[in-house]
Amino acid sequence: MFGKITMKLRDVKDISYNKSSLFHGAIMELLPYEYGKQLHLSQLRPYSIHLEKENDIWSLVVATMNEDAYSIIVEQTLSKLDKIYIKHDDEIVYIDEKIINAVPKKLITRAFYNSETSKVLEIRFITPTAFKSKGDYVFFPDLRLIYQSLMKKFDVSSDDGFLFDPDILDELCRGSKIISYNLRSIYFQLEGVKIPAFTGNIKIKITANQTISNLINMLFEYGKYSGVGIKSSLGMGAIKIIKGGINIE
Amino acid sequence: MFGKITMKLRDVKDISYNKSSLFHGAIMELLPYEYGKQLHLSQLRPYSIHLEKENDIWSLVVATMNEDAYSIIVEQTLSKLDKIYIKHDDEIVYIDEKIINAVPKKLITRAFYNSETSKVLEIRFITPTAFKSKGDYVFFPDLRLIYQSLMKKFDVSSDDGFLFDPDILDELCRGSKIISYNLRSIYFQLEGVKIPAFTGNIKIKITANQTISNLINMLFEYGKYSGVGIKSSLGMGAIKIIKGGINIE
Repeated sequence: MFGKITMKLRDVKDISYNKSSLFHGAIMELLPYEYGKQLHLSQLRPYSIHLEKENDIWSLVVATMNEDAYSIIVEQTLSKLDKIYIKHDDEIVYIDEKIINAVPKKLITRAFYNSETSKVLEIRFITPTAFKSKGDYVFFPDLRLIYQSLMKKFDVSSDDGFLFDPDILDELCRGSKIISYNLRSIYFQLEGVKIPAFTGNIKIKITANQTISNLINMLFEYGKYSGVGIKSSLGMGAIKIIKGGINIE
Repeated sequence: MFGKITMKLRDVKDISYNKSSLFHGAIMELLPYEYGKQLHLSQLRPYSIHLEKENDIWSLVVATMNEDAYSIIVEQTLSKLDKIYIKHDDEIVYIDEKIINAVPKKLITRAFYNSETSKVLEIRFITPTAFKSKGDYVFFPDLRLIYQSLMKKFDVSSDDGFLFDPDILDELCRGSKIISYNLRSIYFQLEGVKIPAFTGNIKIKITANQTISNLINMLFEYGKYSGVGIKSSLGMGAIKIIKGGINIE
């Protein structure tokens, strides 16, 4: 089960993408002790959290990537919430409206086998996005790092089967390229550290066969929940699919 | 002698960066026959031509990179011009005002040896910029391709000494990196072919010693005349230095 809860925040001032790590802390405190401990010990992050702004309204978005996370984080905890206490600022943030989306994982993977996915994708990185490669931050949308990140996140949250494979990664890179972009760098501030990152749009053209195309589209569909790159549980790497993805309606 | 003539164009409509190749053709026709033949035969391009827009006024800018080009193209030909005939559109474009800048090459190279150049550069790519690498177009500002292009252009227009050296290129790449950017892709249309390119700003931080820093700053100072990347004689790859360069005043 892939799940997503969008919580519209009332009258928030002085807010920015950087603040999502404070919301992350607040939400962790709300989770049942045993589950929180389990997440912490296993270093599993079957969720992503980010802040986003649409029509001047800020929302806190929490996405989950497996059954447990959906059931415990979205259903049992966040769906009942009407306010969040931010310890760092000693501030209560009220929630105006909640929208919950849930998609059985099977629907996405089944669509992968059947569908004729788009050979052109347009992806918007809506919160600061970055990668780590050879010890350095990379703040350009390198397709290899994007695909690798999505496959590894998929595997971490998956109970059945693994996706990541260096040969398949090579195939994805050989069979697709960025054909246009509009990007800017931006810093993501986390506990006093400024992480170089980027936001903006890229358009990808797939020249490989339909199977590779389905896989790339599925990865980005999954990326709507997992985010892409580093610190996606703390507000970085949230994406929207402007064109492409897997149509599961 | 590095020279530059900026010709403000009167009431031009339907103009875009792509049109600079038509102006290039018109200017070539104005040059003395022998000099034009010499440029053509030697494949030398000791000049760059581009269109730019400032405060809603379009200018045609022609820069030259050696004595002959300055003397023949700027002084003898363009400084006297009050209109340009564009054959392709059967259109006469009038010139309102001309600004000529001339800088002895020595001033730039001497400044290189003395000055304490900036360790942070900000470069604006004002017309569509692209590179060719391994047969493919590259439409990201890869520092290696930028430095290589500037060094090779410098050498082509130079009468004395060569700058390009693979080891120095390695040093420049090791000693500098892009720390922020704001870029978008754009097509440059040339004789029906759409060349993928980019425009926008990058900020470069130099971590290497002062000698390398001076060289990088000098290369970009030179790039104000030569342009960077492919087709700079036809309107691509024009840059402005927002921060850095060699202060020759």
